[in-house]
Amino acid sequence: MRAAERTADGENAPWGEVTPEAARKLLVAAVEAFAERGYHATTTRDIAGRAGMSPAALYIHYKTKEELLHRISRIGHDRALALLTAAADGEGTAAQRLAEAVHSFVRWHAEGHTTARVVQYELDALGPEHRAEIVELRRRSTAAVRRILVDGVRDGEFDVPDVPGTTLAVLSLCIDVARWFNAAGARTPDEVGELYADLVLRMVATQK
Amino acid sequence: MRAAERTADGENAPWGEVTPEAARKLLVAAVEAFAERGYHATTTRDIAGRAGMSPAALYIHYKTKEELLHRISRIGHDRALALLTAAADGEGTAAQRLAEAVHSFVRWHAEGHTTARVVQYELDALGPEHRAEIVELRRRSTAAVRRILVDGVRDGEFDVPDVPGTTLAVLSLCIDVARWFNAAGARTPDEVGELYADLVLRMVATQK
Repeated sequence: MRAAERTADGENAPWGEVTPEAARKLLVAAVEAFAERGYHATTTRDIAGRAGMSPAALYIHYKTKEELLHRISRIGHDRALALLTAAADGEGTAAQRLAEAVHSFVRWHAEGHTTARVVQYELDALGPEHRAEIVELRRRSTAAVRRILVDGVRDGEFDVPDVPGTTLAVLSLCIDVARWFNAAGARTPDEVGELYADLVLRMVATQK
Repeated sequence: MRAAERTADGENAPWGEVTPEAARKLLVAAVEAFAERGYHATTTRDIAGRAGMSPAALYIHYKTKEELLHRISRIGHDRALALLTAAADGEGTAAQRLAEAVHSFVRWHAEGHTTARVVQYELDALGPEHRAEIVELRRRSTAAVRRILVDGVRDGEFDVPDVPGTTLAVLSLCIDVARWFNAAGARTPDEVGELYADLVLRMVATQK
């Protein structure tokens, strides 16, 4: 119940691309079930039941539970990479691009926190090939943020003694929003995005 | 298997206080099983089996699976609170105390990342009373960090426009180390602690 409500607020979860509607409903049901009980405690029968379908109807769209997880993970990681690449390729100073990367990445983790938890915490449950594919998307997301830091250092805008470590910390700070964000809490996704963009710019600012 | 190896490197996991040895072995087995498969996918039979015991032997020490989770969560949260309180109550400037808080909290999440994942990610599985008890420990941990920030602002050492939000971000940054830390990776727990202490001091530094 709670997970269902939580998913409802992540309206911009990018499931619109999943067709037909039955396949989309099953994916949303899988996100809710995985977030609530964990991947290993969820059966395809649970997922079909949540979607109001029979197990046989599920198998028309997804052959295995892992195929559902892979689809969720792939859509989530594609979206994360698109957000971060758009920010890295955007107009403006390195500081403006870094603020945009953090703001949009945080907003995505806050608005879609139920989905983001599944995307970020169930990597170990993917099969080896799917896992390798997702690891490559993560590598490219990391590279987009690192590129902004490198540009900022080159242009004298940033002081970053440890670029790989700081890149990791920036991404990590944003990702953990999915763990603690509460739609009923005091801050909106945009407010968290704004606060975090400011904190990250402070991390990389040239020192007095 | 992997979880077992991971737990092995968290040697300073504070299970020494758990006696008798059978109760300790069951707790370590529960940490491994919960970290590997999730709380809901783990049975008391799985835990007893990992510890080389019978389910009946488990029930001598723990009446329910939730009791095992509570014991793990309680020990972990007591330890986190002790680390953060020691730093907040320590000698030195606010910057020195904040660096110590971050360094020790990060090191704990890195060295004991298998345990820390269970402690940080399975709060929803606790029963209402146990959950309330743990939430109170978390409130006190947060208060310890906030106190350092307030002291630093008062003494003109720090510039922190949003003390509650920055406190949350600092703790969140440290906690997420449990998700990504890899004992086979390039950085030791101490190196991550040092990097993160520097990044957090930058977050709160007075601005030019």
